[in-house]
Amino acid sequence: MNLLDTTLQSIRPVPAANLAAAQDRLDNLTKPRRSLGYLEELAARYAAIRGEVRPQVGAKRVCVFAGDHKVTAEGVSAYPSVVTQLMVKNFIGGGAAINVLSRRAGAEVEVIDIGVDGDLGTLAGLLVRKVKSGADNIARGPAMTTAECRQAIEVGIERAQAAARAGVTLVGTGEMGIGNTTPAAALFAALLGLPSAEVTGPGTGLEPGAVAAKAAVIERALQTNRDRCGTPLDTLAAVGGLEIAGMCGLCLGAAAARIGVVVDGFIASAAALVAMRLAPAAKDYMFFAHMSAEPGHRKFFASEGLRPIVDLGMRLGEGTGAAIAMQIIEDGVAIIREMATFAEVGITPGA
Amino acid sequence: MNLLDTTLQSIRPVPAANLAAAQDRLDNLTKPRRSLGYLEELAARYAAIRGEVRPQVGAKRVCVFAGDHKVTAEGVSAYPSVVTQLMVKNFIGGGAAINVLSRRAGAEVEVIDIGVDGDLGTLAGLLVRKVKSGADNIARGPAMTTAECRQAIEVGIERAQAAARAGVTLVGTGEMGIGNTTPAAALFAALLGLPSAEVTGPGTGLEPGAVAAKAAVIERALQTNRDRCGTPLDTLAAVGGLEIAGMCGLCLGAAAARIGVVVDGFIASAAALVAMRLAPAAKDYMFFAHMSAEPGHRKFFASEGLRPIVDLGMRLGEGTGAAIAMQIIEDGVAIIREMATFAEVGITPGA
Repeated sequence: MNLLDTTLQSIRPVPAANLAAAQDRLDNLTKPRRSLGYLEELAARYAAIRGEVRPQVGAKRVCVFAGDHKVTAEGVSAYPSVVTQLMVKNFIGGGAAINVLSRRAGAEVEVIDIGVDGDLGTLAGLLVRKVKSGADNIARGPAMTTAECRQAIEVGIERAQAAARAGVTLVGTGEMGIGNTTPAAALFAALLGLPSAEVTGPGTGLEPGAVAAKAAVIERALQTNRDRCGTPLDTLAAVGGLEIAGMCGLCLGAAAARIGVVVDGFIASAAALVAMRLAPAAKDYMFFAHMSAEPGHRKFFASEGLRPIVDLGMRLGEGTGAAIAMQIIEDGVAIIREMATFAEVGITPGA
Repeated sequence: MNLLDTTLQSIRPVPAANLAAAQDRLDNLTKPRRSLGYLEELAARYAAIRGEVRPQVGAKRVCVFAGDHKVTAEGVSAYPSVVTQLMVKNFIGGGAAINVLSRRAGAEVEVIDIGVDGDLGTLAGLLVRKVKSGADNIARGPAMTTAECRQAIEVGIERAQAAARAGVTLVGTGEMGIGNTTPAAALFAALLGLPSAEVTGPGTGLEPGAVAAKAAVIERALQTNRDRCGTPLDTLAAVGGLEIAGMCGLCLGAAAARIGVVVDGFIASAAALVAMRLAPAAKDYMFFAHMSAEPGHRKFFASEGLRPIVDLGMRLGEGTGAAIAMQIIEDGVAIIREMATFAEVGITPGA
């Protein structure tokens, strides 16, 4: 059996008993019950994933998958595709937002060329796992074949496995790909049954008139690929992208390895959505980092009944929201691990 | 002239030119303009406060003011007043939520007995600045005299001055005081002109029926003290509390010392509101940490046109929200300080 299928078969829900044990410890800490709100939910879920009531966060890593999108020929982005390569070099050089925020979070940054359109040469620290040189123009046909899509997902699964082997217990999804709010919006429209216009936004900075044109391109992509969108996997191949498939694989691989995965923003959520459709239990391992400023993101959260950790009006991607949210998850883990219990300090719990 | 008045006179607005210089640098970093959303606003404001476009965060400290409230005799809290003392001991012992979250944020915790009802003895690490043994029952008269209120504010100013002398550039407000959502709600009602019921909530865990009774106590406190609520200072003395006055002083002292102050939750916001009414420019130095689960907190933000950094459904106090928010402010500062500019990496900025 291939890596994708074995991974899907090994994903199990987080045991309810683990969650109950973690909440029981939280309820005995020196604070009114549930007074730390969502922080307690994050702590309980992380503890349950790791199967320990006083867990530790091990190493942290943000995996940044880079890939291009030939749909940029349709004018869907404020930046030209070449910026993908330039930003990959910036990631390797350590000067990008994801580098700064990952240092703050104590997380490593791993950069993977899964589908950049262009030869990046040999850059020390760049992992080359190129499936092909950019996703094809989804307004005119499929982004990739199903075989290419499986291959890209398996790159992500392997990165999750490598992270887990290295002692990582929280992995973040990152991406770089000029034009990738377009395939992400197409995936939301297709998988959530929403009109294209509702999930289309300005991305990195389109003017309002250009946003309407972008929605028309997304609608065209969905029409062109209508007969190819039977299963979630085929939909990802038809209207997705290589870095989106990589992040989908990272989510699946993390769930299979019983580590937490911090899903960044709009693009990453599209990848996570495909992962949830392929393996519903994978959702238990996902922490949704932030509410993107991209308006369609709100539709995704509402549709799936999910809640982001922060809402800072960010719309950068790269994994920047994941790095910020990792700190808050780790705050919650510190609470459940380090706080004193009522019994230890001689206070009788009240309400 | 006394310390409060000299402090009020030395508070100046953050220069608009400083903010513009900081935003100019942010606009030249390798990301689409304003794509880091509110994180950029936090970074720009911190930079402007410090008067540097590439600022650093120095030491961080959460000042936890502890005081009691004799209005607990009216049944407004789920916990008895003695818990204030027990929690102060827990803070000194390092086992409380604020200790855990401050360690995570890299912040020291300073605990100040400004008005605990009871003798805590000599606890290593406890600063004793007791103005009196608990605020009097506001349902039956004033919480304190105006002279006591000034004294408590000046304790807070001194703690801000001491922090600034020690190299602290971000100070957080913390508090412990069983019953203190009651005076905080009374202050919001009096200073924002809102009905008591709109700013009254369950605090640490009252049942719904008890919340209505608490609102009636707050209404009674406002009626009883009606003639004492002329100025913001007199209002604080009449229906506030010692730890609230201490936090008000901390906000004023931080603004005068040109350091940032991270305002925790519901109780701390009432203190910050008094500080803003005493010195409107003090607002420029305040970072509002989080939206408390206490329902009245939303009214405060709406009324003042302010935005909290996170909304995690927390309702613990102690400074816990401030500790979490400090990390996000420091994330923003790292961005403005450490990211590469477009010129440095050879990308032409787009939209």
